[in-house]
Amino acid sequence: MRELLYDNLTVGENGHLYFAGADTVELAREFGTPAFVMDEDRIRAHCREYVRAMREYLPAFSRPMFASKALSFKEIYRIVGSEGMGTDIVSPGELYTAHAAGFDLSNAVFHGNNKTDPDIAYAVKCGIGFFAADNAEELYAIDSAAAKAGVKQKILLRVAPGIDPHTHKKISTGGVDSKFGSGIATGDAENVTRLALSLANVELCGFHCHIGSQLFDITPFIDAVDIMTSFIARVKQVLGYEAGILNLGGGIGVRYVKEDPFISVTESVKKISSALFADCAAKGIRPPAVMLEPGRSIVADSGITLYTVGSIKEIKGVKNYVSVDGGMTDNPRYTLYQAAYTVMNASKADREPDLACTLCGRCCESGDILQENVRIPRPARGDTVAVLTTGAYNYSMASNYNRIPRPPVVLLSGGRTRVAVRRETYEDLVKCDE
Amino acid sequence: MRELLYDNLTVGENGHLYFAGADTVELAREFGTPAFVMDEDRIRAHCREYVRAMREYLPAFSRPMFASKALSFKEIYRIVGSEGMGTDIVSPGELYTAHAAGFDLSNAVFHGNNKTDPDIAYAVKCGIGFFAADNAEELYAIDSAAAKAGVKQKILLRVAPGIDPHTHKKISTGGVDSKFGSGIATGDAENVTRLALSLANVELCGFHCHIGSQLFDITPFIDAVDIMTSFIARVKQVLGYEAGILNLGGGIGVRYVKEDPFISVTESVKKISSALFADCAAKGIRPPAVMLEPGRSIVADSGITLYTVGSIKEIKGVKNYVSVDGGMTDNPRYTLYQAAYTVMNASKADREPDLACTLCGRCCESGDILQENVRIPRPARGDTVAVLTTGAYNYSMASNYNRIPRPPVVLLSGGRTRVAVRRETYEDLVKCDE
Repeated sequence: MRELLYDNLTVGENGHLYFAGADTVELAREFGTPAFVMDEDRIRAHCREYVRAMREYLPAFSRPMFASKALSFKEIYRIVGSEGMGTDIVSPGELYTAHAAGFDLSNAVFHGNNKTDPDIAYAVKCGIGFFAADNAEELYAIDSAAAKAGVKQKILLRVAPGIDPHTHKKISTGGVDSKFGSGIATGDAENVTRLALSLANVELCGFHCHIGSQLFDITPFIDAVDIMTSFIARVKQVLGYEAGILNLGGGIGVRYVKEDPFISVTESVKKISSALFADCAAKGIRPPAVMLEPGRSIVADSGITLYTVGSIKEIKGVKNYVSVDGGMTDNPRYTLYQAAYTVMNASKADREPDLACTLCGRCCESGDILQENVRIPRPARGDTVAVLTTGAYNYSMASNYNRIPRPPVVLLSGGRTRVAVRRETYEDLVKCDE
Repeated sequence: MRELLYDNLTVGENGHLYFAGADTVELAREFGTPAFVMDEDRIRAHCREYVRAMREYLPAFSRPMFASKALSFKEIYRIVGSEGMGTDIVSPGELYTAHAAGFDLSNAVFHGNNKTDPDIAYAVKCGIGFFAADNAEELYAIDSAAAKAGVKQKILLRVAPGIDPHTHKKISTGGVDSKFGSGIATGDAENVTRLALSLANVELCGFHCHIGSQLFDITPFIDAVDIMTSFIARVKQVLGYEAGILNLGGGIGVRYVKEDPFISVTESVKKISSALFADCAAKGIRPPAVMLEPGRSIVADSGITLYTVGSIKEIKGVKNYVSVDGGMTDNPRYTLYQAAYTVMNASKADREPDLACTLCGRCCESGDILQENVRIPRPARGDTVAVLTTGAYNYSMASNYNRIPRPPVVLLSGGRTRVAVRRETYEDLVKCDE
């Protein structure tokens, strides 16, 4: 038996791919395709590992905040909330969704490089726990909204630590090319901190940074701890303010293909812990509570997408195309980033992969590719194809391009299925049309 | 006065950018931002030029079919339909939208590389004019659906003429690397034609090809006419079937930036006409009715997007970022293709462009860029920014990433405004959530 990407994948005696104990070909029949199918128990296990590790190894009040941008619908907030996680939201739409799901917004951080005045007023009214204030204009706007609402609003300040998000290298001089936050190296971060401390209606609680995404090496986090604790120490010395919270953002990588390593969350947290306590001791500051913002590492490998094959086109001497009934509308990540995915013929998972092909979508666009150059057992029209590790940044990035309805999200738990998000209908597509 | 990109753009005495006679800063205030604003009169003028030129210069029954994928909502079908255009749709969702708008579907072609059995049955039931059948599996499915419905279904066959869509060069040997259609050079197109002619419930009416998009050179169309008429002549000789329709697809380019040339639709049609009549005479075939499928060249330069500036971040020695309240969610084309756009500070359109900057969106994603390295008059928080030529492939490709509601589409005509698509609400965002 070939090794499968995750331990919740198996091949049944009928040759079908099983996911979280369920026959994916049966799921495709029952719920239609394309469909996002998610292993709720696996999502919960990931949440618990973050909560437990951060409680055990990091200072009091440390906590993971689920990064909504990876996946946002009402039920996901109920799931992560019931596991003791907070959430990070980046828009009033995510805030609305969390609120509608009954999520405790005092345990939420409002991110983003461009919050409008109405967004800020709305979040203050909803009792948002923290803003991650991005810049000076925003600080004034938050101060003003808090004054109007008669509250003192807790905030973190987003700073750019000077670690290149692409190469994961420290940038030793100059600033950082990012639309997010204020650079430490340029002095902007200190200036914005001074401004925050001067405002009557905001309470500065600490700092936020985000290094990058899909990191398989924990070193950038350790570098970030070093830079951020130095910044905290510097602010303490210069401005007399000692940060109580250090939010290190998200970024722990997950396996999309078998070449990707497996990264242990617990081991990562332990390394961050060691660095943090050592750095704080060396720099004479109190170890701050740590926030992490996992999104991908909570949901990505808990989800797969099921498609139905429409045609198999063999162009002699050129390429073979297998077309499915979804594509860049439900998963734009190959089109956007040439992201790697593992593809399986779920109907014939027991057979040898004998067809090299490009898995393409149904959009009227030549770039509508899900994955180039994969090997799968030769499919027929009607076969179910599974693309793995689609739990993050698929449903959340989906579009109605070509007026294709967005797929449902079906949750599997303890052998039962339930629909967390129903499939869009044609009526939904024209709901805003006059 | 600097030259503006289109003749429906002017600068008012108040320094604001005017579009189709309306003050864009006032439009932003009235309809909120981000907002798509479209010049309906310009859309209609483009439709009329296609209809008139194709009637005048091409064989009887030639007609332009609006390419829905560029822009699909109910009102656009009413507009193009009232101007005498047909439409090309690529999904049941587009079909549903056109149908809901009262569009005459007998004047529609159903495209796409992967139509499911339910899609095909639905389109047959709706009385679709033509399928552009992509492959053998689909032909059988159409034949079967037509038999069930008791109709003889008109079809075109999509063939790949062997013109590289990127370099616009003919490929002299071998096949074409495309998920669409059947290659002429490989013999697949002839085989599929033979199959189509053998099926009892389909009526083969002609052939379809599509060369590429955003073409500033008409030569690839002339090449396509050459290859396709040769194919028609060959099929006539070998199979005794003479095609009545030649659908040449879309692709005429529009101006995104001032470096782009202006392409005359009428002149392009005249050149296609000359080539067609000459080729048909030389090859001994009756000149077929021509279909063209303009999408971008009907709506792209009829639309602009209005945004509000949130922050201006000047990173010393690195870059300046201007953040607006939209981004890759309403216009993913820079993120996808690094597409060029013209950006204007609509609030200060009379001032000299003195700030080199990156115009970025509000998504929590560093790649959320609308345009790099533009020069605009230095904006302040609250200024209106206009991105031009966004009428095509913006609304239709928009997503709810970060749970950002999609903007409205506001039509301007004869000094009046009306909402064709209303802005999404937060309630809309959770409509499918359990």
